[in-house]
Amino acid sequence: MKILIIGGAGMVGQKLASQIATSGLSNGLSSSPVSELILHDVVESAVPAAPFPVKTLVGNIADPRQATELAALRADLIFHLAAIVSGEAEQDFAKGWDINARGTWWLLEALRDEYEASGRSYVPRLVFTSSIAVFGGPFPDRIDDEFLTAPQTSYGAQKAMTELLINDYSRKGFIDGISIRLPTICVRPGKPNLAASSFFSSIIREPLNGREAILPVSDSVRHWHASPRSAIGFLIHAAQLDTALLGSRRALNMPGVSCTVAEQIEALRQVAGADAVALIRREPDAAIMKIVENWPRNFAPQRALDLGFTAETGFEEIIRIYIADDKPGR
Amino acid sequence: MKILIIGGAGMVGQKLASQIATSGLSNGLSSSPVSELILHDVVESAVPAAPFPVKTLVGNIADPRQATELAALRADLIFHLAAIVSGEAEQDFAKGWDINARGTWWLLEALRDEYEASGRSYVPRLVFTSSIAVFGGPFPDRIDDEFLTAPQTSYGAQKAMTELLINDYSRKGFIDGISIRLPTICVRPGKPNLAASSFFSSIIREPLNGREAILPVSDSVRHWHASPRSAIGFLIHAAQLDTALLGSRRALNMPGVSCTVAEQIEALRQVAGADAVALIRREPDAAIMKIVENWPRNFAPQRALDLGFTAETGFEEIIRIYIADDKPGR
Repeated sequence: MKILIIGGAGMVGQKLASQIATSGLSNGLSSSPVSELILHDVVESAVPAAPFPVKTLVGNIADPRQATELAALRADLIFHLAAIVSGEAEQDFAKGWDINARGTWWLLEALRDEYEASGRSYVPRLVFTSSIAVFGGPFPDRIDDEFLTAPQTSYGAQKAMTELLINDYSRKGFIDGISIRLPTICVRPGKPNLAASSFFSSIIREPLNGREAILPVSDSVRHWHASPRSAIGFLIHAAQLDTALLGSRRALNMPGVSCTVAEQIEALRQVAGADAVALIRREPDAAIMKIVENWPRNFAPQRALDLGFTAETGFEEIIRIYIADDKPGR
Repeated sequence: MKILIIGGAGMVGQKLASQIATSGLSNGLSSSPVSELILHDVVESAVPAAPFPVKTLVGNIADPRQATELAALRADLIFHLAAIVSGEAEQDFAKGWDINARGTWWLLEALRDEYEASGRSYVPRLVFTSSIAVFGGPFPDRIDDEFLTAPQTSYGAQKAMTELLINDYSRKGFIDGISIRLPTICVRPGKPNLAASSFFSSIIREPLNGREAILPVSDSVRHWHASPRSAIGFLIHAAQLDTALLGSRRALNMPGVSCTVAEQIEALRQVAGADAVALIRREPDAAIMKIVENWPRNFAPQRALDLGFTAETGFEEIIRIYIADDKPGR
C-alpha cells in the first residue's frame, strides 16, 4: 500500500508518519502492509526511519499543478491534513480560501482525472482532517450527529465546504473519502501557533516545562479536546474503516473530552501540583474571548463511537499523554 | 435602486422581473424605488414593460469574465437564480459544479474586488435561491432549522456549498447575502424539464389542460411544495429583510405545503373533477423513485415564518394559483 500524507511536515503529519513507520497501519484490529510513504508539505518534511521507502515532496496545494502531480502518484491511501490554521485564515481571507478550500478541490479534480485515466479502477481512500470549527452557535448542550454546520469563521466554512466536496466525489465513486472532525488537539507540543485555540495547550504545556503561560479567557470556558495520540488513532482507524458503514454521510464528529478551563487547571494541579498552576497568568483578551465564545463545548459523537473511534476519558489522561509522548526530556 | 437578476430568462426570473416591473419591490410592508433592471441569462431574456429601463445581458456564469462584468454593474440588489437543474447536474458532474458552484464563487470574488475598489462602500444585497435539496435522509418527521445539510445529489451539494460561501463573504462584510431554500415549486407552468421533481407539477398541470400525465412514484410519496407566486414573494421579501435579524445563519428554510401525491390528486379532484384525475397514468420509474426517496417531506420552518415569509396553506390553494396565474387561456 502506497501512502501519501499531504501536510506531512506538520505536528499531526509527523506523528502520523512516525506511527506508520513504526507500526504500519495497525489500529489494533487490522493491519495493512505499507510499501511506500510519501510526505508532502510546503516545507521539507522530516523523514522517520521506516522498513519501507519514505520520500518527501515540497509544494503548495494552492497551485493546481501540485494537485496533478500528487494525484499522479496514485497513492492507495491519502491523508489530507494540509491547512492554514484558523487565525491565519481569518486574517488572510484569500489565502485561507485558496489553500483550505480551492487547493483541495484541485486535488479532487485531479483524482477524478486519474480515476477516468485508469479506466475507473483507481479509487483512493482519502482521509480528510476536518474540524469542529464547522459548527457555530447557538449550540445545544451537546452537539449530536444531526446538528447543522453553520461555521462562524472562514476556516470552518472552508472545512465544511471540503466535506461537501468529499462527500459528493465519494458518492459518485471517484474517491472513497471520509472527513473526520477533530476536536481541539491538546496538549500540542512545541510553540504556540496562530490558532486562536493555542492557549488551551499553552496553559498546560508551558507550566509543565517551568514556563509562564497566558490565559486569555475566563475559567468557565468549556471546550472539546483530544490528545495528539487520539488524533493519530482517528486517522489510522479512518484509513481502514469500512466506508459502506458511513452511508451517505461521510463526515464524522470525533470523540473527545469536554471540560472547562477550570477543570483543565485542576487536572494540571493533580498531575504537577500548585507550583505549575501558579505559572498561569490571567490576561483577558477580548478578541480571543469573542472567537472562543462561538466554539463548540460538548458533543454526543454517537456515530463515531459506534464505528470504533476512541479518545481519552478525562483531561488528566490528556496531560499524562503529553508527558509520555512529547514533553522535552521525557 | 439598480437590480440585477442572474437567471433572468428562467421561469422564476421572468415572473420576478414582471413583478418588479409592475409593483417595484413592494412586499406589502415596504417598497423601494427601482431605477433600472438588468436581466442576465445564457439566453436572451424576455423584457417586461416597466416604468424604468430594463436591459438584458447574455452570458454564462461559468466563465469568470462574466462574473467581473456582472460585478462591475454595481447593482444594489442581485438576485442569483441561475442554475442547471438537479437531473442535469447529476448527469453532467463537471457542468453542474462549474455552473452551480464555481460560477457563483467567481461572482462572489468579483463582488469582493468591487468592494475593495469602491473603498469598501459597495456592499450589494445578494438573494440566492438555494433548495431543500441541501438535505438528505434519514429525516426526522419535520426538518427544523437546526438539521444538518447532508445532500445526496450534486445539485444539493452545490447549493449547500454556495450557502457556505455567501455566509462567509457576508460575515466579512463584502456582500449582504441571504440564501433561501425553496421548496419544490409547484405547479410549474410550461413543459416538463430535466428536474427529477418535474412530475409533481405535471400530474396537476397536464390534466388541467386536458392532457395525460405520467406519475412515476407511489401515491404515498410526501413532499414539500410552494407556488411560483410564493417563490416570488420569498425573493421580494428576502430582498428587503433586515439581515441583522439573521444573525450568523444566512440560509433559511422557506415555508411550504407538505402533502402526499394522493393528497395532491385529491386536491386536483376537488378543483377539476374526476375527469382530470383520470388523465393521470401510473408508470412507476425505479430511478425516479430512488431519487425521490431521499427528498425532504416536511419542515418546521420557524425562523422563516418568524421573519415574515409566507406560503400557501394547502395544495388546493396551490392549484388555484396556477389556474389564476399561469393556465393557458386563463
